[in-house]
Amino acid sequence: MPTITFRTPFLAAFALVLSLISTSLMAEKTYTIRLAETWGPGSPILGETPRSMAAMAEKMSNGRLKFRIDSSNKHKAPFGIFDLVRQGQYDMGHTASYYYKGSIPNAMYFTTVPFGMLAPEQYAWFYYGGGMELMEEVYKPYGLLSFPGGNTGNQMGGWFREEITSLDDLKGLKMRTPGFAGEVMAELGVAVTNIPPGELYTALERGTIDALEWVGPALDLPMGFHQIADYYYAGWQEPGAEVQFLINQKTWDSLPEDLQEILRVAMRTAAYDMYIQTMHESGEAWDRMKEDYPNVTHKTFPPEVIEALRNATDKLLAEEAEKDPLAKEIITSQREYLKQIRQWTNISDKAYLNSISTD
Amino acid sequence: MPTITFRTPFLAAFALVLSLISTSLMAEKTYTIRLAETWGPGSPILGETPRSMAAMAEKMSNGRLKFRIDSSNKHKAPFGIFDLVRQGQYDMGHTASYYYKGSIPNAMYFTTVPFGMLAPEQYAWFYYGGGMELMEEVYKPYGLLSFPGGNTGNQMGGWFREEITSLDDLKGLKMRTPGFAGEVMAELGVAVTNIPPGELYTALERGTIDALEWVGPALDLPMGFHQIADYYYAGWQEPGAEVQFLINQKTWDSLPEDLQEILRVAMRTAAYDMYIQTMHESGEAWDRMKEDYPNVTHKTFPPEVIEALRNATDKLLAEEAEKDPLAKEIITSQREYLKQIRQWTNISDKAYLNSISTD
Repeated sequence: MPTITFRTPFLAAFALVLSLISTSLMAEKTYTIRLAETWGPGSPILGETPRSMAAMAEKMSNGRLKFRIDSSNKHKAPFGIFDLVRQGQYDMGHTASYYYKGSIPNAMYFTTVPFGMLAPEQYAWFYYGGGMELMEEVYKPYGLLSFPGGNTGNQMGGWFREEITSLDDLKGLKMRTPGFAGEVMAELGVAVTNIPPGELYTALERGTIDALEWVGPALDLPMGFHQIADYYYAGWQEPGAEVQFLINQKTWDSLPEDLQEILRVAMRTAAYDMYIQTMHESGEAWDRMKEDYPNVTHKTFPPEVIEALRNATDKLLAEEAEKDPLAKEIITSQREYLKQIRQWTNISDKAYLNSISTD
Repeated sequence: MPTITFRTPFLAAFALVLSLISTSLMAEKTYTIRLAETWGPGSPILGETPRSMAAMAEKMSNGRLKFRIDSSNKHKAPFGIFDLVRQGQYDMGHTASYYYKGSIPNAMYFTTVPFGMLAPEQYAWFYYGGGMELMEEVYKPYGLLSFPGGNTGNQMGGWFREEITSLDDLKGLKMRTPGFAGEVMAELGVAVTNIPPGELYTALERGTIDALEWVGPALDLPMGFHQIADYYYAGWQEPGAEVQFLINQKTWDSLPEDLQEILRVAMRTAAYDMYIQTMHESGEAWDRMKEDYPNVTHKTFPPEVIEALRNATDKLLAEEAEKDPLAKEIITSQREYLKQIRQWTNISDKAYLNSISTD
């Protein structure tokens, strides 16, 4: 600051007062962030996460950051959050990167990959293994920043009305399973269909479909699938699905540094918390399912099915890597990171869990 | 605020200016938090966590929160942080709850328990399963607040120079393993000793001890034990050791609400981050150990050893529960929570990891 000499003490005092007022006004400027979420109103866990982030940020900023959160019934574009934030209709979004495979094929890898990393392994890749930098590279051309937005934990392989004992049992099986996992399933001869969530229960009950994949106990319980299907299979397709916060770069740049940090830390904590909350609620929900419907049985796909699913996954990922150098870089980064960190998971958590397998 | 009528516009303007100045000055008041850590200067991971917390809090508060962090070389009381913060010599501490078993027996349960929860399961217990409330009950009588302060992940069972093939191999084995795990080992006939960290390598090399337990690959690698012991055993004793932030209640109460929230969220994020950082560095360190010392072999204790360790753990915990109703309440809460959430871990992560066991 340049030195200014005042001719009278009165003027000096007046200048000081003006400067304090201006600092005070600047410090009190509020920013209202409009956030669009993929989820419908009152959506459990997924919808709680942006609200928990907003509550933390508002409180930490003493009200200088405010949020207006719109659910999908308001903006009518549950799978168009990417465009809404890119075009500036909203400042932020809470959605999942793999929904935008159509617009940006490389967005897919930042949610989850079949036979990929568990949630903690994937957070390690994001924060310490180069994942954040690759995600930035993918989103930067669209004027967007993307941050981890909460993990669903290991998703279940789905509800099946009949047991799967061989690869043959999958041929012609009518199953609801969307996205990349659906493409993998189709490689094995599954008749993959997509059905709106509200019609899933009836479709499974009436035999329109033989099986479906949703999320895990916490979000499956309210859908009621355990009342009409006995076999609940362990997952392979989404071992740690991370949703995302999207932010328009211009909004981010308009914030002072302290509010940027408040937003960054609030998003980071809300994301971790969602992983832990889902784990908690999955434990409770699975307990309730087994108690109310003792017929429900947990199954793991036979080794030949797992092997075929892995081969089909590898084949499709190799095709994606061929198309684009950045896709290849991301896939390679994830594979190499997984190979290293899984060795650690195997000698620690897996060895521990297996050594007390009587539980 | 009461309505005040001013006789002249000048006085009204003057009052407004005064009010703005006072708001401004209040908003700019800085608080310097003195934090004592158990760890020595430059301690990897453990020492990085309070500094990362401080950096986030300083930036989020725009400098209104400042930290002065003292390592153990300064305050000379690595295992006396509880007293330093209780007596107000420091405002905060970064330490581990189980170090204070001597002063508060019930502090032990908030770090980790043999055959207990994995880190994410334990975070679920803390934040959604009643753990925070029980920890508050234990620390409140001392004028302290305790918060999760970072997880080491699953700790390894230790380095052994000879393979353990039966319970007999443990009888008379000289092993460094401190705390509750040491008491359990002693029940099995192990000659438990404690040796200062700086002398551990030489003690193991010269045969003063036959085995030792430290942490996991990330913190074991710099100690060099893999150069002189071939068998690295999977853990059972600390499946998810959570260190802690301690805060003097008076310091906490002196902070305005926004700074309390900034501190709370910074601690929460730094704690989660430490878990993820340890996971990352353990993956790298284990990779390096195997490459440089191919003789190093990962082992799991034989089932009869695991069973004996569990029985001894159950016996000692039952004795603790007998002594004190609050101990009983905490042990019961953890047991019941673990039973429920482990079912979910088993059908999700464990089933997934075992289904792709070829890795």
